[in-house]
Parts: sequence; structure tokens; C-alpha cells
Amino acid sequence: MYRTNTCGELRLANVGQTVTLAGWVQRSRDLGGMTFIDLRDRYGITQLAFNMETNAPLCEQARKLGREYVIQVTGKVIERSSKNTKIPTGEIEIEVAELVVLNEAKTPPFTIEDQSDGGDDLRMKYRYLDIRRNPVRRNLEMRHKMAMLVRNYLSDRDFLEIETPMLIKSTPEGARDFVVPSRMNPGEFYALPQSPQQYKQLLMVAGMDRYFQIVRCFRDEDLRADRQPEFTQIDCEMSFVHQEDVLNMFEGLAKHLFKEMKGLEFDQFPRMTWHDAMRLYGSDKPDIRFGMEFKEVTDVVKGHGFGLFDNSELVVGIVAEGCAEYTRKQLDALTDFVKRPQVGAGGMVYIKYNADGSFKSSVDKFYDAAALKDIADRMGSKPGDLMLLLCGPAMKTRTQLCALRLEMGQQLGLRDPQKFAPLWVIDFPLLEWDDETQRYYAMHHPFTAPKPEDEPLLDDPSKWGDIRANAYDIVMNGTEVGGGSIRIHDRTLQNKMFHTLGFTDESAAAQFGFLMDAFTYGAPPHAGLAFGFDRLCSIFAGADSIRDFIAFPKNNSGRDVMSQSPSPISQEQLDELQIKVDLKG
Amino acid sequence: MYRTNTCGELRLANVGQTVTLAGWVQRSRDLGGMTFIDLRDRYGITQLAFNMETNAPLCEQARKLGREYVIQVTGKVIERSSKNTKIPTGEIEIEVAELVVLNEAKTPPFTIEDQSDGGDDLRMKYRYLDIRRNPVRRNLEMRHKMAMLVRNYLSDRDFLEIETPMLIKSTPEGARDFVVPSRMNPGEFYALPQSPQQYKQLLMVAGMDRYFQIVRCFRDEDLRADRQPEFTQIDCEMSFVHQEDVLNMFEGLAKHLFKEMKGLEFDQFPRMTWHDAMRLYGSDKPDIRFGMEFKEVTDVVKGHGFGLFDNSELVVGIVAEGCAEYTRKQLDALTDFVKRPQVGAGGMVYIKYNADGSFKSSVDKFYDAAALKDIADRMGSKPGDLMLLLCGPAMKTRTQLCALRLEMGQQLGLRDPQKFAPLWVIDFPLLEWDDETQRYYAMHHPFTAPKPEDEPLLDDPSKWGDIRANAYDIVMNGTEVGGGSIRIHDRTLQNKMFHTLGFTDESAAAQFGFLMDAFTYGAPPHAGLAFGFDRLCSIFAGADSIRDFIAFPKNNSGRDVMSQSPSPISQEQLDELQIKVDLKG
Repeated sequence: MYRTNTCGELRLANVGQTVTLAGWVQRSRDLGGMTFIDLRDRYGITQLAFNMETNAPLCEQARKLGREYVIQVTGKVIERSSKNTKIPTGEIEIEVAELVVLNEAKTPPFTIEDQSDGGDDLRMKYRYLDIRRNPVRRNLEMRHKMAMLVRNYLSDRDFLEIETPMLIKSTPEGARDFVVPSRMNPGEFYALPQSPQQYKQLLMVAGMDRYFQIVRCFRDEDLRADRQPEFTQIDCEMSFVHQEDVLNMFEGLAKHLFKEMKGLEFDQFPRMTWHDAMRLYGSDKPDIRFGMEFKEVTDVVKGHGFGLFDNSELVVGIVAEGCAEYTRKQLDALTDFVKRPQVGAGGMVYIKYNADGSFKSSVDKFYDAAALKDIADRMGSKPGDLMLLLCGPAMKTRTQLCALRLEMGQQLGLRDPQKFAPLWVIDFPLLEWDDETQRYYAMHHPFTAPKPEDEPLLDDPSKWGDIRANAYDIVMNGTEVGGGSIRIHDRTLQNKMFHTLGFTDESAAAQFGFLMDAFTYGAPPHAGLAFGFDRLCSIFAGADSIRDFIAFPKNNSGRDVMSQSPSPISQEQLDELQIKVDLKG
Repeated sequence: MYRTNTCGELRLANVGQTVTLAGWVQRSRDLGGMTFIDLRDRYGITQLAFNMETNAPLCEQARKLGREYVIQVTGKVIERSSKNTKIPTGEIEIEVAELVVLNEAKTPPFTIEDQSDGGDDLRMKYRYLDIRRNPVRRNLEMRHKMAMLVRNYLSDRDFLEIETPMLIKSTPEGARDFVVPSRMNPGEFYALPQSPQQYKQLLMVAGMDRYFQIVRCFRDEDLRADRQPEFTQIDCEMSFVHQEDVLNMFEGLAKHLFKEMKGLEFDQFPRMTWHDAMRLYGSDKPDIRFGMEFKEVTDVVKGHGFGLFDNSELVVGIVAEGCAEYTRKQLDALTDFVKRPQVGAGGMVYIKYNADGSFKSSVDKFYDAAALKDIADRMGSKPGDLMLLLCGPAMKTRTQLCALRLEMGQQLGLRDPQKFAPLWVIDFPLLEWDDETQRYYAMHHPFTAPKPEDEPLLDDPSKWGDIRANAYDIVMNGTEVGGGSIRIHDRTLQNKMFHTLGFTDESAAAQFGFLMDAFTYGAPPHAGLAFGFDRLCSIFAGADSIRDFIAFPKNNSGRDVMSQSPSPISQEQLDELQIKVDLKG
């Protein structure tokens, strides 16, 4: 037996016991007569004491141990004279009688401490050392616990976890597939799933009724800051349900997670239509940890000779409460912020509603105090507040103001990562116009059902943009953590939808033929939802990046810097697969 | 709400309630005045009653419903006049008041019954209909339950499920990798994992101590009858453990599964060395549901002028108890069986030990009654038994006799699929000689540790074949369901092992560099095991094939006949990946 106990386990009650521990040398302190070593494992730290007086050779040996050596010790649990109240084992130490070096260690390239001196790249290259650090270890423990909670919750509610294939058929629609050449079927390829969408719908046709899977998915996209080529979904589908049933089920799951992971209880999650979300927050994933809703003032500001406002489709602003004292410098910084290419506004108008009831604005030339008071009234602003306004084409301006609102929320400390504000966004548009290709695309996917009352609009192409879908997203703290929809189970409606999306019968059959076939053999009404599991973990931990919730993530070039993958393969492998590398130079 | 209850739920206690059910039309019976429909969902079958007298239009409508139509009904639960004791809902039926057709269905290409009229290919093509059948549905339900039991058992014992990457580095050693061209890194490829072996060892270096993962793995091998290109492992690794700890932990898991899934309790699983398994059963995965151990008679049979025996390295046989009455025809069939190319024996010798104490054998010319009695005594045979003997080179003959033993076990009904005989096979050889390449290969993988007492033999190439590994398999009913080993955590020993396997320092570094690097930073002693989850499910269900425990399996050409994958991809996709199909014609 390598150990009788872990390094996180021993307490005063164990004093007098002889124990064997194994772990890593976290640090060692040499105090002349005594040497103390902090021995670390996954469960905690236990102090080891070596006494020069009573056992000089052992103490000498202990002094030679380097950081991160793997050792095994046997000794007696004794009460510490100077206790450490910061760790659960801080009242005891081990009076070591035997010491075995299980493995030596080179000095790690960064310190194995909560605040490490290693930069991101170095930590990723030596990820196996990075994981030894408490914050990363805790993230992976948390992820495990979340997954167990999800599985047990759903399983208790008759959901079956069913594994769907990873080697599937490539479909050109949507994001890029990763493909896998088939050696047994030369010239042919599998694709890795972007999601198990079609398989989970087939499982509904198969009568499986309540399906889930915590499943790896793949998307060969150019990676933005916080995207991974492989990611994990909590993928779910249900039969014989209406939207209400789905929302309740997964709201229940989310509440269960909040309760078990964070000790938080929630009333019913608020629901907001996509239209309201865009109008009030300029985003389909509003951060409602704070208010600062958009106020539209287009009609109030017009006719004062300010051309920019007069000619804008929309003039809209936010009220930053208590910010009337913002300095010129602060206001300039905000203007710079909205003018950054990532935001893209032409400029920003501010109106200070001073504590004394007077106004000071960047448009004083056009608006007198009365006019500014009208704007303030419309915006619900009071003395001491700062109003920030943007103008331009409606949707574009809303998106820009969304960025400004989030920035103000940040500056005012209103986006506490330990505060949680879940929200359902519902009634998404069914179709999305693409200027470039001059046609509509499915906002969600081609199987998403329109709201029954909007179905007739499918017959009038001029109304396609108005059709609402039975589609919903679950949003937390301004991040979409999941989404789904009611699926079309009726073949006639599905065909209509395909035609709307520009598919011919042939192209629809080529891509979705087997699913459409399946639907002719008795498809039940069904609906589903998928959570982004990596993202859900990061939100629950109050973290920005998903990377530290993935044991071995890839960098922004899709590269694993630890194993140096991807990498060239041998000519023999290429020959067997009957493919050739064909670099365009 | 689509339904108030499932079709498996209602009992006499519900009589009088008005309920809404939804499901599939299993069958309908038209009895003149009444029409009865069996409505099916995942949970069971409920009988619907339509009365021509009280509601003729509804009854007419019901009569038009085809098999597998999806319908919703509302009605009152009433007691049946003629009860069906075979199903849990058999005491009640629904007096239907409302009927809604949710979806029509074409007539399915095979019957949705426990015994279907559909052949394998048809069932695979319409797998979503096949899954509606009870046996397939039950398999998937069982698989879900097993996975939940495994996860909760391991999680309760401090194992963390940690997801390892699916897009990893290709290593030419071992079976063929599936590879994935990287668009962002042209000319480079990821590989899909054959197992998370290196990552789980890295997690041990990372201090994660107890890891598991139910994980998809991939092997691009020519598929034998019951292999799949993608399969699922219960993958586990532990630190600070000896072999005994690992065997106990996973024996505990297996016992837990037997108890929860089958209501079976076991004492300690028997353990057998690889050497004994080969000697007594001619297999490293003996089926010990029955005895019929091998009896070696080489010395007893020699010197009687029977050249075949005289010149054989090994003469070995089995005793088929009570089979002395086997007919000429039966014996000929057995001889044909061992001579099949899959078995490959040159012939078979039989000795009947008749009930009256006399003998009749195929070698009477060489052996008189006394000589045959000597053989019978050595083999522990008694009157009424049949002895079957093979001869030739030792290992080859054992393998042939293994096939004969299993065949006899089958014929004698000794291989009851509902009986379970788990077994640990331990002390596997570390190295395996390959005649073709004239070198040793790692029997398990290059990280498997030799038994400490055999380590010195690494210095003597003539003894390499004798080195035993700390490697173990868990075998059930003659099938290997899992295996693992103690890993080498010492760099010096690992280097010696690499050299033994013919790696240069450079080639070892190229393939395993990052793992070897990791081992220099404080690797703990560690060990692991992986179960083949698909196989484990099939064994627990007493089934031969793993296919029906996989929702969407592939056929023997690695093809999904339902989605017609793999398939050609577009030139645009190939161009983006900068690869070319290069068929050798």
C-alpha cells in the first residue's frame, strides 16, 4: 500500500496514529534543528516534520528533496505547536520516521502555486504541471461534479444517455466539418459531428422520447479568442412536448445546478422575446445583472437642427446613474471606446444631468436646457445621472450601444461574476437575411419550427423576416449557455421550409434524405436544447475563458502545444488512405 | 400538454381518471362493434377502446389508423372485461373520447415486433425503426443504466471524469489511426484517439490521482465480424497503487454492476496466471463457466509406435463427460470442426471410455486397453466419458484444443449466457515475439511495467520472452472485457524498455517525447485499466454481438448504411484542406 491516507485528510482526531502518505513536495523550510516539508496531493497539504536531533540522517535526506519530488513517508500524526488555521490539516503534522523517494523531479518551468509565474503559453506547454495548481484542479473537479449532477438529474427524469456516432456523414450546410478519410472506402470521408442534431431527432422517431448526451462536438472554424475546435455539449431532445415543457425541464436542470454548485435558489427565470432583447439591450443575450435599459429618444431629439440626429433612423441611449461627475477624460475615453473598430460607432453624445438640476451636454449648441430636460424625462434620468446616446441605423446602433452598456456596467462594477442572472430569450426570428448572398438562412437550423400562428407568412416572401420561430436560448450573465427549438415533424411543412431556404427537392434529399425518410415513418412532435458545457462551467465559476475548464485545450491556431499536434503524417499513412497533401503554397 | 401519462403507467388504481396518451399504433383489432388499438411508447402498451355504438365517427376514424401512426387520445381509464396478464397495464383500457393524428406513417419495411421479419441489413438501414422494437430499446436502456452505475460508483470513490482530447497527435505505433486533416495547419493532421492512454498517464503526472472517462475510441482496422471502427471504453487510471489495489477497485465495480444489473453476488473473482490459462484452457481468456480443463498426456502416449504422437511436442486432450455414446457421425463432425482452417488442426484422436469399462478409440491399432486406461487415468476420465486429443507444437495445439473445448461446451449446453464466470488473468508476458519482423513487441503497450522480480531479465535478450508484466485482463465467459497494467514511472526503466522494443532515443522522443518529458517532472507510480463498454454491455445481456448495444453501428465495411456514410466530399472542401484524393485504381 502506497498510502493509508491522503494529504487532505488528517485532523487532531488522528493524533497518535501511524500513517503513510504519498505526494509531491510543495515546499520545504529548513529551520536549523527542524526541516518542514509541505506534502501535496489532490486532496490537500500535510506538513511533514524532520528532526535533526532525533534522526539526523533522515533530516539530511529530507533537505535534499527538490520541489515536486514524489515521496512516500511513514510517521506518527502529532499536534502542531504552531497551528495553521488556513488549511484543514493545519492542526497536525507528521513526525516522519521513514522516507522513500518515489520519483525525482526537474525544477518545474513555473511555480506550482495558485498565482503562478508561468505565462499562458508556458502553462499550456506543460499543462500536466499547470493542472497541479489548485485553481486548474478545482475547475476540473467542478466540471466533473457538474457533469454528474446533470446526468443524475436527467436520468432521474427518464432521460436516456445514448451515444451517437462520431464518424458521420459530411453535410456542406452550416459551419465547416472536420473530415476523416476512410481507408476502407477510398475517396470517401466521414465527418466529425458539429452536433448530434440529426441523430437525436432520429432517436425521437425511434421512440426514445427523452434523450441526452454529454458529447464532444467539432467545428472547423477560424478560432476566435475563446473558441475550441472540439467542445462539449449537453445535448437533449424530448418527444411529445410543447415549448413550455422544454423550458420548464431545462430551467429545472439549471436551478438544480445553481442550488447544488452555488447554494443559490431562483424563482422562475425571466423570459424575454428576441425583439425586446434587441430593443432594450441591443443583444440576443442581454446581461441582466444590471438594468441600464435602452431608451429610444428618436422623436424627442429631432427638429433641433442637429443633423446627425435628424437624419438617423434611431437615436437611443442609456442612463448611467450617478455618473454626472464623469470627467472630460472619462467621457473622451468612452467616445474612443465606441469608435473602436470592434464597436464601430461614429461618435457618442453625452448629457450630464447635474446634481443641481442643470445640464451639460456635447450638443448644447442644438439643445437648450428645456430640450435636454425633455430627453432626460423620456429616458427616466434624474439629477446626478449621465446620459449616453448613439444614433444611426436601428440594428447597428443597438449593437453599438450594447457594447457601451456592457462597458459602463463593467466600469460601475455591475457585472459581478459571482452574481447570476439567468434569462430565457424566446421567439427568435426563424430566418435571417444575408446581404452577401441575397437570401434567407435558417437562424437556428432548417428543422426549427415556426410559431404556428406565423406559419401562414411562409407563403409571402415579403414577410419572411417577420416569422418567429419556436426557438429559445438560455442566457446567463450576458452569455448564451444553451439554446434549442421545437422541431418540424410534419413533412409538408419541412418541405416548405426547405424551399424557403433555397433547397431544391434534390439538394434537400441529398443532405437530409435519411432524416426526411425517417419522418415518413411516424415522427412524433419533438423539441430539444443543447447547453455549451465548457461555457456553462466557466460561467458557474465566474470565469471569462473556457480554456481552464478543459483539461487539454488547443490554442487559437487549433494546436496542442504540449503534444505538438497536428503534425505531418507518414507517406505510408497517406498512401494507405489514398490521399495526397496538395499545398497551395 | 401532449400527454398526462405514458403508455406503461396506468393501472386499476387509475380507473375513472380522464387521461391523455400519445404514442404509436402497435396494432389494431376490429371486432365489429368495437375497435381496439394497442398504443405503444417507450414505457409500454395501453389498450385503447373505440365503441361503434356510442361513437361511430370516432370508431370509423380509429379504423383508418395504420400501423406506426402517431396519435394522441383522451379518454377515461376503465377496467377491462378480458384482462391481459402479460403486460403491466393489462387490467385497464382507455375508453377514447378524442383522437388526434399527430403524424401519419408509411408501412414500415419490417414488423415492429420482438421477433422482427427484417433481416440485419434492412434493420440497419432503418435503424430508427429497429430501435422501436423492445429488444433493441431495452439494450440501449441497459447501456444507459450501466453507464450511470459506473459513473456513480467511481465518482463516489473520488474518481474524476476528465475529458481528454479527440483531436490528438498521430503515432505510427500500434493499430492504424484515423486521421483528420487540419485546415488551419495545412499539410498537418490530427489523429483520433485509439485510447486516451497518454493523456490519462499525463493526468497522473498532473496529480489527478483517480481518473476515469467513458470515452469514444477509434481504430482503423479491417473489421472482423464484431468490431466497430468507433467503440467506447470505460477508461481508468490511478496513482499510488499496486496491482492489488487496481484489481480490488475494479473487481468492486464489476461486482456492483452484477448486483445492480443482474441481482448476482460474487465472492472474490478467481485469478489465473497467463501461463496457467494457456496451459489449462489454451487461451488468455478462458471460459470458466465449465471445467473441461486440458490434460497433457505427452509422456504417457509416447513409445507406442504412433508416429504422430511420438513426434509431437505436445499431446493434450479434454474429457467430455458422459459423451462415450457419441456416434461416428458426431465424431466425424468434431474432426471436421478441428480441421476447419479457422482451427487448423491436422486431425483429432478420440478415446471412448465405455460405460462397461471397455475402450474404443481411433488409435486402437497402437494402444491396447491398458495403454488407453493409462491415458484415461492421467486425464481423470471415468467410464461413460469421451476423451478428445490433439497433438503438435505446444502453443498451436493448445489454441486448437481451446476451439474444440468451446465447441464441446456449446454442444453440451455448458455455456449458458445467463450464467456469469468472471476471472482475472494476470502475469501476462511483457513482450511478444513477432516471427515476421523478427523482433519483440510490447504485448500491452510500451509503458507496461515488468514484474519487479523479472526486471533483471531485461539485460539478457535470450530471456526477454520470459519476462512477466504487471498486466492483467478481466475476462467474463471467455471474453476479455477489460485489461490494464502497472505503468513504468521510472525514466531509466522506460528507456531500457524502449531500447528493448527497438526504439532509438530519437524515435522514442519523436513518438512519446511529451510524455517522457512529463515523467521527468515528478511522475507518481500509477496503473490503470480499461473496460470495453460495448462488449461489457453485450456480455451482461448474454448476447454475442456488440452491434445491438450501439444505437447507430457501422457495418463490416465501416459504413453506416442508414446515412450512407462515408461519402465523397466536395472539391471545395478538399481545396480548403489542401488535400487531394489519389486513388490507386
